[in-house]
Amino acid sequence: VPINYLNISADAKKQRDKKIKELLEKRKLLQKGLDENSIEMFIREISLMDSNNYTNKCGVGEREGRIVCDLVRRRHFNFAHGIGRSGDISEIQPKATGSSLLNQLTNALCLDLIKMMGVRSAEKCIIFPMATGMTLTLALLTLKSKRFDANLVLWSRIDQKSCFKCILTANLVPIIIDTIKNDNDELHTNVEEFEKQIEIFGAGQILCIISTTSCFAPRGCDDIEALSKLSKKYDIPHLVNNAYGLQSTYFTHQIEQAQREGNIDFVVQSTDKNLLVPVGGCILFGFNQELINDVAKMYAGRGSSSSTLDVLMTLLHLGRDGYMKLVHERKEMFQYLKENLEKLAYQHDEKVIVNKRNPISMAMTLKSFNKNKVTMIGSMLFTRGISGARVVSTLENKTIDGYTFNQWGSHISNENNVPYITVAASIGITKNEIDDFIEKFDKVLLKVKNNES
Amino acid sequence: VPINYLNISADAKKQRDKKIKELLEKRKLLQKGLDENSIEMFIREISLMDSNNYTNKCGVGEREGRIVCDLVRRRHFNFAHGIGRSGDISEIQPKATGSSLLNQLTNALCLDLIKMMGVRSAEKCIIFPMATGMTLTLALLTLKSKRFDANLVLWSRIDQKSCFKCILTANLVPIIIDTIKNDNDELHTNVEEFEKQIEIFGAGQILCIISTTSCFAPRGCDDIEALSKLSKKYDIPHLVNNAYGLQSTYFTHQIEQAQREGNIDFVVQSTDKNLLVPVGGCILFGFNQELINDVAKMYAGRGSSSSTLDVLMTLLHLGRDGYMKLVHERKEMFQYLKENLEKLAYQHDEKVIVNKRNPISMAMTLKSFNKNKVTMIGSMLFTRGISGARVVSTLENKTIDGYTFNQWGSHISNENNVPYITVAASIGITKNEIDDFIEKFDKVLLKVKNNES
Amino acid sequence: VPINYLNISADAKKQRDKKIKELLEKRKLLQKGLDENSIEMFIREISLMDSNNYTNKCGVGEREGRIVCDLVRRRHFNFAHGIGRSGDISEIQPKATGSSLLNQLTNALCLDLIKMMGVRSAEKCIIFPMATGMTLTLALLTLKSKRFDANLVLWSRIDQKSCFKCILTANLVPIIIDTIKNDNDELHTNVEEFEKQIEIFGAGQILCIISTTSCFAPRGCDDIEALSKLSKKYDIPHLVNNAYGLQSTYFTHQIEQAQREGNIDFVVQSTDKNLLVPVGGCILFGFNQELINDVAKMYAGRGSSSSTLDVLMTLLHLGRDGYMKLVHERKEMFQYLKENLEKLAYQHDEKVIVNKRNPISMAMTLKSFNKNKVTMIGSMLFTRGISGARVVSTLENKTIDGYTFNQWGSHISNENNVPYITVAASIGITKNEIDDFIEKFDKVLLKVKNNES
Amino acid sequence: VPINYLNISADAKKQRDKKIKELLEKRKLLQKGLDENSIEMFIREISLMDSNNYTNKCGVGEREGRIVCDLVRRRHFNFAHGIGRSGDISEIQPKATGSSLLNQLTNALCLDLIKMMGVRSAEKCIIFPMATGMTLTLALLTLKSKRFDANLVLWSRIDQKSCFKCILTANLVPIIIDTIKNDNDELHTNVEEFEKQIEIFGAGQILCIISTTSCFAPRGCDDIEALSKLSKKYDIPHLVNNAYGLQSTYFTHQIEQAQREGNIDFVVQSTDKNLLVPVGGCILFGFNQELINDVAKMYAGRGSSSSTLDVLMTLLHLGRDGYMKLVHERKEMFQYLKENLEKLAYQHDEKVIVNKRNPISMAMTLKSFNKNKVTMIGSMLFTRGISGARVVSTLENKTIDGYTFNQWGSHISNENNVPYITVAASIGITKNEIDDFIEKFDKVLLKVKNNES
Repeated sequence: VPINYLNISADAKKQRDKKIKELLEKRKLLQKGLDENSIEMFIREISLMDSNNYTNKCGVGEREGRIVCDLVRRRHFNFAHGIGRSGDISEIQPKATGSSLLNQLTNALCLDLIKMMGVRSAEKCIIFPMATGMTLTLALLTLKSKRFDANLVLWSRIDQKSCFKCILTANLVPIIIDTIKNDNDELHTNVEEFEKQIEIFGAGQILCIISTTSCFAPRGCDDIEALSKLSKKYDIPHLVNNAYGLQSTYFTHQIEQAQREGNIDFVVQSTDKNLLVPVGGCILFGFNQELINDVAKMYAGRGSSSSTLDVLMTLLHLGRDGYMKLVHERKEMFQYLKENLEKLAYQHDEKVIVNKRNPISMAMTLKSFNKNKVTMIGSMLFTRGISGARVVSTLENKTIDGYTFNQWGSHISNENNVPYITVAASIGITKNEIDDFIEKFDKVLLKVKNNES
Repeated sequence: VPINYLNISADAKKQRDKKIKELLEKRKLLQKGLDENSIEMFIREISLMDSNNYTNKCGVGEREGRIVCDLVRRRHFNFAHGIGRSGDISEIQPKATGSSLLNQLTNALCLDLIKMMGVRSAEKCIIFPMATGMTLTLALLTLKSKRFDANLVLWSRIDQKSCFKCILTANLVPIIIDTIKNDNDELHTNVEEFEKQIEIFGAGQILCIISTTSCFAPRGCDDIEALSKLSKKYDIPHLVNNAYGLQSTYFTHQIEQAQREGNIDFVVQSTDKNLLVPVGGCILFGFNQELINDVAKMYAGRGSSSSTLDVLMTLLHLGRDGYMKLVHERKEMFQYLKENLEKLAYQHDEKVIVNKRNPISMAMTLKSFNKNKVTMIGSMLFTRGISGARVVSTLENKTIDGYTFNQWGSHISNENNVPYITVAASIGITKNEIDDFIEKFDKVLLKVKNNES
Repeated sequence: VPINYLNISADAKKQRDKKIKELLEKRKLLQKGLDENSIEMFIREISLMDSNNYTNKCGVGEREGRIVCDLVRRRHFNFAHGIGRSGDISEIQPKATGSSLLNQLTNALCLDLIKMMGVRSAEKCIIFPMATGMTLTLALLTLKSKRFDANLVLWSRIDQKSCFKCILTANLVPIIIDTIKNDNDELHTNVEEFEKQIEIFGAGQILCIISTTSCFAPRGCDDIEALSKLSKKYDIPHLVNNAYGLQSTYFTHQIEQAQREGNIDFVVQSTDKNLLVPVGGCILFGFNQELINDVAKMYAGRGSSSSTLDVLMTLLHLGRDGYMKLVHERKEMFQYLKENLEKLAYQHDEKVIVNKRNPISMAMTLKSFNKNKVTMIGSMLFTRGISGARVVSTLENKTIDGYTFNQWGSHISNENNVPYITVAASIGITKNEIDDFIEKFDKVLLKVKNNES
Repeated sequence: VPINYLNISADAKKQRDKKIKELLEKRKLLQKGLDENSIEMFIREISLMDSNNYTNKCGVGEREGRIVCDLVRRRHFNFAHGIGRSGDISEIQPKATGSSLLNQLTNALCLDLIKMMGVRSAEKCIIFPMATGMTLTLALLTLKSKRFDANLVLWSRIDQKSCFKCILTANLVPIIIDTIKNDNDELHTNVEEFEKQIEIFGAGQILCIISTTSCFAPRGCDDIEALSKLSKKYDIPHLVNNAYGLQSTYFTHQIEQAQREGNIDFVVQSTDKNLLVPVGGCILFGFNQELINDVAKMYAGRGSSSSTLDVLMTLLHLGRDGYMKLVHERKEMFQYLKENLEKLAYQHDEKVIVNKRNPISMAMTLKSFNKNKVTMIGSMLFTRGISGARVVSTLENKTIDGYTFNQWGSHISNENNVPYITVAASIGITKNEIDDFIEKFDKVLLKVKNNES
């Protein structure tokens, strides 16, 4: 092969290698995403650093990263050793330098993403190979190991099960503080009640405050600034459940602001909802390295590297530009959904409730429908291929491990509650999906009305 | 295409379809493993049942199984929704019937494997998408939620970190019971001390007993039959850490026998070490469906389906015959390793310690070496590509969260402890690896001796 | 798994299955493309029909479709038997009903594409697993086997090597007919000269006429209508080299029109250039089934199914809508390239030559540059990452197997020829590429000018 | 990640890199095959050298290696440009240095394999992306272009269609020379008749001799030594059809010997049958570089790189050791088949005919069966999943393009011919397959006998 042809190829290679070197040195998101080929090459190169992939591997232990099924081996790009060591999910594995590098790099890129999205003072970020709920539990157990006498968790009510479960799983006692409704039917945090409860029980009895950002309208983002101030004032830890809030700069700015004015210990969010990867991981970040490391040290055993790998490949694929594009498109789609839903609501004599503190989800009242039949609307939508729309009838009372929530789904027990449906424009949603939803929703409402009359 | 040619193809298809139907109906391991093509077809067919893979999907929720990076999507065969629902890792997801089926089927096949291996009275099995240690923690938290006043965990000492960490992570108090050494230098369970501690603290104070089966020689499998009897006698729950014990019928028969004679609540073991998949999952099984379900209901949030998928593909690939072949080969390799190591030990004036209750791991004394330099042997082996061999110097004292273990690695504090190396013949090990190890180990020992003299 | 959830999945499956059934029955392009998952499932299902993929395969012949390297097996989706039988590339293989179906279906879809693009009277289409040039050779050999005494091929000059080689490879004698230049510097077919040569040699001596549609400007599509009329009038077979012309309705309409008014025996075009697949296949179509079958019967041996598989997956991926989208975008990009190149030409005092009969390629004169240095422009562009631009200096004479072409690249020997560069907006080109080209081309021209002055 | 861990990884990488470097420098087969991961890395690294994979690619030509369907792109590891340039299948492509390297390297490794198998004086080898038959046609056309007046091809009869077709496709005239039968019913070359025909027509009229090595018993390898001597004596080119003969050292030694004693111009063999890859390519080799290059220059157009890629991956996977293992196993399986078939023949009062000059295929007489019903045995075997067994009834006369072969399948027209079945132990066959065949064949024979009586 003539030398001048080879030179051009070598140039192309050099450009690639330069990007990878930059990535490994700076550990920051690339501005532009990499092509699939480059990503795969890089992943394979790292995986070759793990001992199970050495040509002359020789294992006389009980855990040697052997994979017996080829389909399995390939889908993990030959990664077998997971991440972390027995006592610490972020520790280096001698047998698996590639997996360790994968883990460190991904956590670093994730931290860079968090900063880019607006939480500029974030200090440390770790991806946990568990559900967000379980990671919250682990964070609670970590706090508990330090505040052994505190058993109570102050929790701003949000009618979503796993967020509540995580308190019970840690064998702690929740104090549920209902939201309050304003004149526009928006639901906000009852900050006064928080302070009241702190005074009733005493700060020493309270393990922590849990607040929530992203949620189903008409509930909005908790007043985390106020709660952060309480946290600081009374020296009570503060956990923020930012479930799918990383995709929106509104929530991230709330977090940044709250930390500046008060105190936040931990912020958790799911990898799948924010980064468009399969369910499986949770991003935990905070403003104090040691605190985050403490949680890492509570994870007993090695963890799956699967979510970490998904996140790394996704971040390399998107780059800064790719993620910001998704963020902007989502914002536009929210407006588009709002406008179309308002038109529809007007036709059906209903009202769209947009909470100023909720840039992702919106609700539409269903007050002109029979409360007893309103859930049928939800199942009719589902059988027509619409997923994710939730109908709240206000008639359901739900009991979770002995705690009863009246008017489950409403985030507040209030005789004025009306039935409604809630929908979200979350990251990755397309115009087609919104059009499809509006069209089918219209038909379903008409059909239900006709049946009722 | 002529009809008689098509008929032959159709026959081939029918045979395949019959196997799949049998699989779905009986939910038992196939006798013979499937070829890769059939496995992949089956997995894809299931994944098409999830709503994110419907042709006309329309998602207006916050979690719609969108995957933005193609590399990620493909490696998960388009599975995105994970397993379980917010409050229960084994619950069905309406949006994800395929993932739900995947989960149920894999758990069923895993239960069948457990029975085939000898735990015939096992009743229920669930794969948790977490490390074995974290699953132990979850099981402890589940017990704690029922026995609110019990804080102590009776634990037969084994010098492996994550097994101990799981107690601390659950914010419980371990009572460490050293093993006892017999005349052959084998380490066994101090059953008397267990009973003594129960009587000292009272059964009501004790949350549970944790015993271990598979472990590094010279420690052997705990006397789980005796501990099971204590569990039954005093009505104290009993957890068995069967870490990599599912691969050996010795351990599984111990478990079956112990449950018949006494009581076992939970048995945990890792997916990677027993099923040759990447690190990430834990198999929890027991003899009482409700108890196992209770743990499932403690997992807050959805979990990754990645480990479950790995296990399913592996079990379909192996079938009963394939797994039993691995089991038998391992047994032979243990003998082969033993014979060769004994020859080597003889040459170096050392002794191989095989614990009758340990069919996987064996130890070789290093008493003729300087205790201070003995760990060098381990690192020399590692730089020569030998992984998994552990050297115990008897000089190290390790403190984990305030608990100090003297002579860490020895499972017992005893002035007669000698340094040793421990190696294992675990599932998947090859003759080549053993030959390679013996050769390199010999050279390393000679080199160290020469340097010392 | 509850029945109502399963029903929704079953509905989704039914929709898919319906599409596949329709595809197999109608053998027409789908309106909308299929998602990757559905395509892969379909391909795998077909491949399972081949005997090498039967579970209990037993081969005692010399060609049993065994594949020893897993990477190879997977990339062919387990297809091993190729297409055709020893004497006929379109025959059914008893051992390989799946491969046979693959072959038939793909040829049928390809015919449908050809009709959709405007050649409505096309009757039969076969994909040959060889280069376009080799397929032309095979077509020539087929004609030769019927017209044993005819040795001459009338060929409208186009300065592209493989098109000329195919005549020589068939051991035939080309008669080269230069194009003629009109006032706008466009190059057209010298129809008169064709007729003159027919009369000189007599129709019986002439094996066939070869005309070309898609080509580098300033040459345009041959006047295939006029040549078709000659073909009919003198009963001389007519081959059309439609190399990359299937992507443009201009060329396809020319072909349809020419066949209506005269005669075309064979039309060849490459799969890679028209369908955006890797190099490897050629589409041969015509208006008389028997004639096309005759060529199929000339292919000695089985052929690779690789190109056919690529084409099938691509056509399933695109559907009618997807391909037409590419066709329309290309047309727009041609305009965009033209406008930008005209601006650039104006700045550099040059002229863009667009041949009305060439909707893909355009030329820009380089008359203000030193003829001896003009090829440097081409290599400077190449080292800057621009591929596909061709510079014609008018100084090169090229001899191929004894035939000399003066002013190679010009398609005509003419003292008025000026140097030029030719570029194309072919299917799949992006706006980015055009912008990038214009920018770099400008810089190169400036640099060359500065060096010259 | 600590430096000592990284060092061990770096060592592992160095070993890999060394192997690749050696491969590229020596261009010889590796002794031991590479693992899948290393192969894939290497292939991807080469493919990145092609311009369609440059990050900033900008294409303004008509063939830019764009691939629109991701499934297609991936299965070709991003190779798009094929191999060769318009006039020469082995030429370097400026746009595609990676594909060019792929092509050169694979041809070199293939030559090394040929030498290793025993044709030590082989000088040059090229893989053609076409069927063996088509490659024979191309070789014939190449000879024809040099010996313009020679139209006849002397051909030792073998009743396999594509081998005969290739002569007709090149528009040449075959002279069919029947084999002769010896006392053991073996069929051998009628060398005398060859010389007689040469003298009748004169060497100048004869384009070439075509001989065959591997074939269905009772026919054996042609006496290529004698034919080579005739070739040399009369200066008539000699083509050897070594279809699946590369897998057996018997055939390769015949070739080496024949070339030493006389003359061979070209040897062709299929990639699929000898290298266990999917159908699609042909290996052409010879003892004179220029001659082989002449054929390469006859291939009009670029060719698919698909077969070349398959061969490269397979040769890297196997290494010298892997291929030789297959060769030895096949030899053993031939013995095993022979022994078992002889037992069966004895039971059914038939005879196995093994031709000393045929180490792959053997025949078993079916003389005790009704000639009219004997083909039923073949189709009964086929419906029972046995592929590759051929039944010759001696009753069939076949006409191919005007040439009639009496007693088609017998390789000789002879009134003493008896019906028989022929089976082969070719590379990759397993003991299981042979056992399965013998068992089913026995049952079929019994069934047919019972029906007859």
